[in-house]
This record gives sequence, structure tokens and C-alpha cells, in this order.
Amino acid sequence: MTATMAPSVIGDALETLRSQPPLVQCLTNIVVAQWTANVLLAAGAAPAMVDNPHEAGDFARVAGGVLINLGTPYDDTASAMRGAVAAASDAGTPWVLDPVAAGALAWRTELAHELLGLGRPAIIRGNASEVLALAGGAGGKGVDAIDSPEAASEVARSLARERGTVVAVSGPIDHITDGDRLVRVGNGHPWLTRVTGVGCALGALMAGFAASVEDPLAAAVAGTAMLTVAADIAAAGTRGPGSFAVALLDELSLLTPTTLADRVTLS
Amino acid sequence: MTATMAPSVIGDALETLRSQPPLVQCLTNIVVAQWTANVLLAAGAAPAMVDNPHEAGDFARVAGGVLINLGTPYDDTASAMRGAVAAASDAGTPWVLDPVAAGALAWRTELAHELLGLGRPAIIRGNASEVLALAGGAGGKGVDAIDSPEAASEVARSLARERGTVVAVSGPIDHITDGDRLVRVGNGHPWLTRVTGVGCALGALMAGFAASVEDPLAAAVAGTAMLTVAADIAAAGTRGPGSFAVALLDELSLLTPTTLADRVTLS
Amino acid sequence: MTATMAPSVIGDALETLRSQPPLVQCLTNIVVAQWTANVLLAAGAAPAMVDNPHEAGDFARVAGGVLINLGTPYDDTASAMRGAVAAASDAGTPWVLDPVAAGALAWRTELAHELLGLGRPAIIRGNASEVLALAGGAGGKGVDAIDSPEAASEVARSLARERGTVVAVSGPIDHITDGDRLVRVGNGHPWLTRVTGVGCALGALMAGFAASVEDPLAAAVAGTAMLTVAADIAAAGTRGPGSFAVALLDELSLLTPTTLADRVTLS
Repeated sequence: MTATMAPSVIGDALETLRSQPPLVQCLTNIVVAQWTANVLLAAGAAPAMVDNPHEAGDFARVAGGVLINLGTPYDDTASAMRGAVAAASDAGTPWVLDPVAAGALAWRTELAHELLGLGRPAIIRGNASEVLALAGGAGGKGVDAIDSPEAASEVARSLARERGTVVAVSGPIDHITDGDRLVRVGNGHPWLTRVTGVGCALGALMAGFAASVEDPLAAAVAGTAMLTVAADIAAAGTRGPGSFAVALLDELSLLTPTTLADRVTLS
Repeated sequence: MTATMAPSVIGDALETLRSQPPLVQCLTNIVVAQWTANVLLAAGAAPAMVDNPHEAGDFARVAGGVLINLGTPYDDTASAMRGAVAAASDAGTPWVLDPVAAGALAWRTELAHELLGLGRPAIIRGNASEVLALAGGAGGKGVDAIDSPEAASEVARSLARERGTVVAVSGPIDHITDGDRLVRVGNGHPWLTRVTGVGCALGALMAGFAASVEDPLAAAVAGTAMLTVAADIAAAGTRGPGSFAVALLDELSLLTPTTLADRVTLS
Repeated sequence: MTATMAPSVIGDALETLRSQPPLVQCLTNIVVAQWTANVLLAAGAAPAMVDNPHEAGDFARVAGGVLINLGTPYDDTASAMRGAVAAASDAGTPWVLDPVAAGALAWRTELAHELLGLGRPAIIRGNASEVLALAGGAGGKGVDAIDSPEAASEVARSLARERGTVVAVSGPIDHITDGDRLVRVGNGHPWLTRVTGVGCALGALMAGFAASVEDPLAAAVAGTAMLTVAADIAAAGTRGPGSFAVALLDELSLLTPTTLADRVTLS
């Protein structure tokens, strides 16, 4: 393992994203589609929820980044995902895989593996259970992690090396690795687990940063840093998960590259 | 009719739910999926929106409770609902049926009756028109109740007896019956009708409480009490339906078993 | 071009809508369904998201107005849209077409043209790129307008004449025409572009007003005026897109016909 990432890399990534807003195609679930689009807009990116089989592939060729999120897959959306992954891989569009509840549910776990066979994602993002499931280990029960990011960290590194991708494991401390380097992000607040779709929106942010910067590890860290630093600020002035979610959108919008670099805790 | 329920039963139900957060599977509509998940999270439960035909049945075997909401059914989700109801019934998982717009729309009314033929729900939750429609009476026009809960109360009692279930009729005063006992909950605020999906989220809360406590009548009353007491508190400090909905999530999260038992109005 | 519309027409339209809340059927996308329903409820209308092929046609016969929004169409919803448009046309129910991303995506552009062949909408609402695409001109890239409303204004007038409909082009200044008259609405705030689904909800509001007033031009202007005047007021007290969206719902609910007529800027 080499040294961790400099905070200035993260601040620069945000400046780049804001200077040329990336078009982020999201094939995501019905629960978080609105929230994900609003997080992207607040951050400074341009969301486009093109998730039908007729258009998803063509759009993945022109999008800046693509998110594939397995939250509520149907046959139609699974078909759209196959098309988007194949086209993104062919066109060189970076894509992010968020294998929601992989390991806990058989059909989507197979779908996740099938998608990994169609192309190489820039980033795989999940909780510890999901990452372990993708790596062939024990799976979780439902959508909440039952394994710790620390425990999944070594498996994440192996998975990253094997697949030639970045693997980001969410948790109280986020662990993000490209198989060589490992970056830990220490920001965040427990209320992030009381708002649905925060992790899903994080995958979309990573796809936005992957469209803006060269290094997928920096993209995954920048997305995580931006969301969790904004959460730190938002939590300070709110009293519950409802007002916190609203303030989080405000703070994502107000967050400057300088404040982001100043407040992110990398190790 | 025997006497009404003691407020302490409701406070205890919330304490039980919080001490071991139930996994609530929701097969619900595209309009309210996010809101429903956020209401469950704020209350202290764990939502899982598994609603495709490949996985819904298997998941209903391990979930603590299942919500079947007919808000925007498609062929795919209807198929998933059939699987979930059959599996829940087989495995003994309590499930809640929310027959949105039954009576007003033919296809979903048939679907509701079909689902009732596949298993016995712990709770049927709807407005007066929907409950009348399920009982074979006159149906409503669209999603708003045109019949009063008082008028539907006797029909609800018959339906509860016939089906061996609890029937909860929403309105300014909620009427909840298991065919023998009838509990009226007097809390709530008119703004609840100006936020989409409040009734849908109530069905999900009931599924959560049905996973936590033995008595389905107590589960239905506890869900209703929790939502409407939190609404009373939220309405006091807000100026319109937007800020009210945000405050409602905060108050659901902050509500203690003691405050719930103190403020609920049962008769 | 004749003179612009009197502000009192707009105030009167809101008074009419509130006095008899129209039932607005929305066939819209998974991203904005909740937001759209909440905007309609806050404004004083009654939303009904009936978007499956089994029920959409029958419901379009009894609805006051219908919104067809192409944000995330699937085969199922496309089929429901065909049924709803045919039934609405047959029954005389006014309907609004919002051809999201037409021009940028081939399949939905064809679908938009196909729907226009099945009936005549009361209103077509889009950004400049989408309106140009429907008129056979150059298309946009994704969902954001890359052409100005001013540039699209003449094309909108031709399209309105050719189709016998009202065409509303969104932008910093909204341009709304029935082919003869042209009304410009100057209210609004940049944050409207940082909240997903504002344009989509505007289409739904127009469908509500089209159910309430005779003149579709007045309906399109009233919907635009109501949303943008409420936005002016909401923006004054908020600090980012999250709190702005919440305040927008509050202000839509609090807006009186008098304030609307006083603050709208028509030219």
C-alpha cells in the first residue's frame, strides 16, 4: 500500500466537475431516482435517467458516466442495463456498479455477475456484505451491511485487483481501493443511514466524478468525500432525518472545493 | 364490541419495534416508494423494496412483514405480488393489503380480490371507498375517499370477520377493527391529505408493527397512532405541506414511546 | 400577434381550480412521480397516477385532465400512454404532452410523434430543444435545453398552428403560444433548474388548469405563472435547492389568486 491521497486532489476534482458538468446516466431504482437526480443537480452534475432497453445503450455512448444500480431491477431494466454496460464498455464511458442487496437475493446477484462479464466497471460501490458477495464470499441479509468495512477491506483489494477496478466499501469509515492504494474517508454522520438512497446517490456522484477526472480512485474518493463532508455540515443544523436530507442538498450545492479539501479526513 | 385499547399497548409496541427493527418488504407504487422507505427508517424499521417476480416470493419468507400496495401496479409487479402473498402466507409472514383505488378501477380491484384468495392478510388498510369496494359495496372515484369512515365502519367489521383479518379505515378519525373490537384514533391533521403517500406509508408502518407485536389490531392501531401523533407535533411548527412532510420525518424519528402513549387519543 | 393576457385571467383560473379541484391523471416518469403529485396537491388539484395499460384508457375518460410525460417510458407505460391518449381524445378530456428529451433519444421521439397521431393535445410543453425536435428541427442533448426559448418561439408558433394546440417553451422567460397569441412569463428563479422534475410538474399543473378553464392558452400560462411566482417567493427565504423545493410546495399551497395576479409578469 502506498500513501493516501492528498485533500487537494479532492478539491481539484470538484472544481473540474463544476467547470464542465458531466452528463450522468442513471439506471437506478424506483425508490431513489428522484433523490439521486437531486443530489447530482445539487453537486453540479447533469442527471439523465435513461433506463429503458430501447435507448439505454445508445445513450451510454454519449453520457459522461453511467450508474448501474440494482435496487429494484425488473426484466426491462435488467435488459437496459445489459445494453448500457456493453455500450459503455465499447465506447469507453466509465460506469459504476452498485450491486444493492447482492448476496441476499439470488437473481440480482447473478445479474451483477453477468454485468461484470460484459465489461469492466470503473468503480464497484457497495456495503461490506455486497462487496463480499461479489467477491464470492458470504452475503448479507437485505440491504443493510452486516459485515464491517474493515473486515471487507482485504477482500475489496483482491476484488479490485482481479477485476482491474476500484472497489468502494461504505461504512462509518469508507474504505476505497484500486487494489494497490487504499484510501479511508472518515467523514459522515449516522443520519446518513436513516435517509433512503444515500448510498445509491453516492454511486451516482462517483459516476459523475469518473466522467470528470482520469483516476477512478480519485473519483470514488471525491464522491465519498463530497457527500460525507456535506453531511457533516448539514447534520450540525438539523434535528432529524427529514430536515437533514433537505439540508444535505443545500450543503452539496454550497460546498466549495476549498471547504471540501479543508474538511475531508483522509487516511 | 369490547372496550378500546390502552395507550400503553401502543407505547410498548413502539418500544418493541425500536428494540429489534423489523425488516419490512414493500411492494408499493412508484409515487411513494422513497417516502415510504424514509417513513420506515425514521420510525425505526428497516425497509426493503423487493418487488420483482424473481425475488419477491423468496424475500417474503425472510421478511418480518410485507406490504402489498396497489398504487401503480404493472403486470410485473402484480406477478411479484402474487408470489409474495403466497410465500408470506406459507411462511407465516404477516402482510398488509392496501387496495389503492379499489372500486374505482376494475383491473386492480380484481387483483385485490385475487390476492385475498391467495392468503389471509394480517391487516387491510384503506379509505372508506376502498374498504367498501373490497367488501363488495359501492366504490370510490379515484384515490380520495368519498364515503365516510363512520359509514364504512360496520362494513369494515363484517369484512374483518369474514376474512379473519383486521380492517383499518382511514379518515379524520381512523376506525380500526378485528371484527370484534373497534378502536378509533382521533389524532391527525388536514395536511396529511396534502402530502402524497401518507396512507401508503401508513400501510408500511402497520406491516412493521405486525412484525413486532402479536396482535394485528394493536399493530394497525400503533402504526396509525405513531403517524398521526407525529403529524400533530409536526404541524405545530410548519406553514405548508412541504415543510410539514419534512418535519413529519423528524418527529417520527424523535417520537418516544412515552410521548406516543401520552398523546394518542383512543376511543 | 394580439395583446398579452391580463393578470386577472390567471388569478381567476386559480380561483376556479381551487373551487373545484380537478382530477389530474399523470402518466409520468419514475423520477418525478412523487414530486408531481405533491405539487398538484399543494396547488389544490387531485393527482391520480394511473399509468398501466389495463386502466389508463378507462381512467382518461373520467379524469379532468391527463399528463403524458416521456421521462422514463417503458413498453408497458408506452402502451398505457397510447390508450390514455386515444381515450382522452375520444372523450374530450384535455391532455398535455411533455416530450422529455425528444430529439436526443430516438425511440421516445418516435413515440411522441405516434401519440400526436392518435389525438390532439391541448398543450405541448417542453424546453426549446424538445419543441424544435417535435417540429422536425434540430434536437437537444439529454434533458437540458441547448436552444433558447426565443430562438424556438417562431417554431413553437408554427407547431401550434399546424397541430391546433398550445405550445409552451420553458426557459428563463417562458414563451407560450396558441399560434396566434404569444404570452411571455417573466417570473422564476435559477434554482428551478437545480430541482429535478420542475418542468415535469409544470406539465401536470397545466393539465390541471386545462381541466378548470376553457382556454388552453390561459391554462398553460396559469400553470407557468403559478409555479414561477411561487418560486420567486420560495427563493427569497431559502439557501439552496433542497430547502427551496420544500418552500416551493409551501408557497404553492399558500398562494392566493390575488397575490398570483399581482406578482405575475406577463408580456
